[in-house]
Amino acid sequence: MIEFIHTSTLLHDDVVDESDLRRGRKTANALWGNAASVLVGDFLYSRSFQLMVELDDMRIMRILADTTNTIAEGEVLQLLNIGNADVSEAAYLAVIERKTAVLFAAATELGGILGGLPETQIAALREYGMQLGYAFQIADDLLDYVSDADTLGKNIGDDLAEGKPTLPLIYALQDASDEQRQSLRHAIEHGGLDSLDRIIASIRDSGALERTHARAVAHAAAARESLAALPASPYRDALATLADYSVQRTF
Amino acid sequence: MIEFIHTSTLLHDDVVDESDLRRGRKTANALWGNAASVLVGDFLYSRSFQLMVELDDMRIMRILADTTNTIAEGEVLQLLNIGNADVSEAAYLAVIERKTAVLFAAATELGGILGGLPETQIAALREYGMQLGYAFQIADDLLDYVSDADTLGKNIGDDLAEGKPTLPLIYALQDASDEQRQSLRHAIEHGGLDSLDRIIASIRDSGALERTHARAVAHAAAARESLAALPASPYRDALATLADYSVQRTF
Repeated sequence: MIEFIHTSTLLHDDVVDESDLRRGRKTANALWGNAASVLVGDFLYSRSFQLMVELDDMRIMRILADTTNTIAEGEVLQLLNIGNADVSEAAYLAVIERKTAVLFAAATELGGILGGLPETQIAALREYGMQLGYAFQIADDLLDYVSDADTLGKNIGDDLAEGKPTLPLIYALQDASDEQRQSLRHAIEHGGLDSLDRIIASIRDSGALERTHARAVAHAAAARESLAALPASPYRDALATLADYSVQRTF
Repeated sequence: MIEFIHTSTLLHDDVVDESDLRRGRKTANALWGNAASVLVGDFLYSRSFQLMVELDDMRIMRILADTTNTIAEGEVLQLLNIGNADVSEAAYLAVIERKTAVLFAAATELGGILGGLPETQIAALREYGMQLGYAFQIADDLLDYVSDADTLGKNIGDDLAEGKPTLPLIYALQDASDEQRQSLRHAIEHGGLDSLDRIIASIRDSGALERTHARAVAHAAAARESLAALPASPYRDALATLADYSVQRTF
C-alpha cells in the first residue's frame, strides 16, 4: 500500500516538476508523457485503497486516507512556495513533514499496528518514521547540491533551477554576504539555470550545506532515540542502522 | 464523496487532454497549469477517502475503492485507444463503462445502501446508474459533433482533434463511403484539426449521429426500466426524468 502511494506521488511529482531523470533513468513522464503519468498514478493510488479494503481495518484506512490527503496538501504548499525567497525554515519543515515524513510515519505505525504491538510502541514507531522522514528529506534536498547526476540518479541543481527554496538555500540566505544573498534571491525568484555553478559554489561557501547536514543528523538521532521504547532485537538494530544510513547516503 | 472523485478526475482529465474549456469557462489547467491541476486533483481524491472513513462502512469503502480503480483503468484504456481507427464499438463501450458509468452506478448504489433499501432495490439502483452513465457518456460524445462551443461550454470537435475514437466516429467508419472512410481514418490517426468542418460534415452525412443518439436513448430506456423494481414515488419519477434528460440535453 505504502509503495503504491509512494510511486503514484512520484509519477505525479515528475509531471509537476517536469523532471526527466529519476533513479538514474528517464522518468515515466519523459518517456510516455503527462497523460500516462497522471493516469497510471491515479491507478496505483486507487489500487492502494483496494488493498486497504482487503485488510478490513478502519483504523488503517483512516491513517492512510489522512496520510494521502496530508501529502497532497504538502505538495500544494510546496508548489505555492516556488519562487518565494522568503520561505522560512519553519515553513520548509511544514512542507517536508506533509509531503514526506507523514508517509514514513504511516509506514512504521502500520507495522506496529499489524504486528499487534502495545500503543506506546506503536506511537514510538510512528515517531521513528516521522523523524526518519525528516532526516531523509533534508538529506535528499542536500544531495541536490552536493552530489552529481551519475551518483544521484537525478539532475543536480534541479531544486534551484525550479526556484524551490529548500533548507540549503534557506540557510545560505541567512549566512551569505549581501551580494551573494542578492544573487541567491534572484535565482529563487527567477530560476537559477544560467548561473547554476556560481550559485552552488556560493551556497557551498556559506557553510549552509554543513548546517543542513547537521539538521538531518539531528533528526536521524531523534529517530534512533525513539526506538528505545521497543525491546532490543535485530529488527530494532536494523531500524537504527537505517536512520544512520538515511543521512550518510550519497544517492 | 462522488462529487470530489468526479472533480478530481476532471482536473486530471484536463491535464491529460490538454483541454482549455470546460463548462463554458477556462479549465483549471489553462488557468493555473498542470502542476496545480494534478495536485489539487490528488487532494480532492484523498479528501473523498477521508469522507468515506467518516462513514465507517467497509462496504461503501470497497465500492468506492473499486470504482476509482476502475475509472483509472478506463482512462488508461481510453488513452491507449487514441489514434486507433480500429477501435470497435465493444471496446468503446468497455471504456465508457469504466471511465463514466461505474461512477454513476456507485452513486446510485450508495444511495440505496445509505437509505437502507433491500438488496434487490440496491441492485436495481446500481443498474439504473450504470445505464444512465452509458446514456450520459454516449450523449456527451455525440454533443462533441452536434453542438457548438457557446451552448456546450467546451470546444466542438475536441475528440476528433485528439484522435479519440468515440461512437459517432466508429459508426461513421462503418457507414461511410470508401473515400470518406479514408479521410476519417486519417483524422483519427493524425488528428483532424486541419479539415475539421469537412470531416464533421461527412460524419453527419453518414447517419452516424442518428445511430449514436438511438444507442444513447436505448440506454436511457434501460435505466428507466430498472426503476420498476422501486416503489412509485416522486423520487423515482425524478430519476426517470433524469434518464430522459440525459439524452435530450443540448449541453
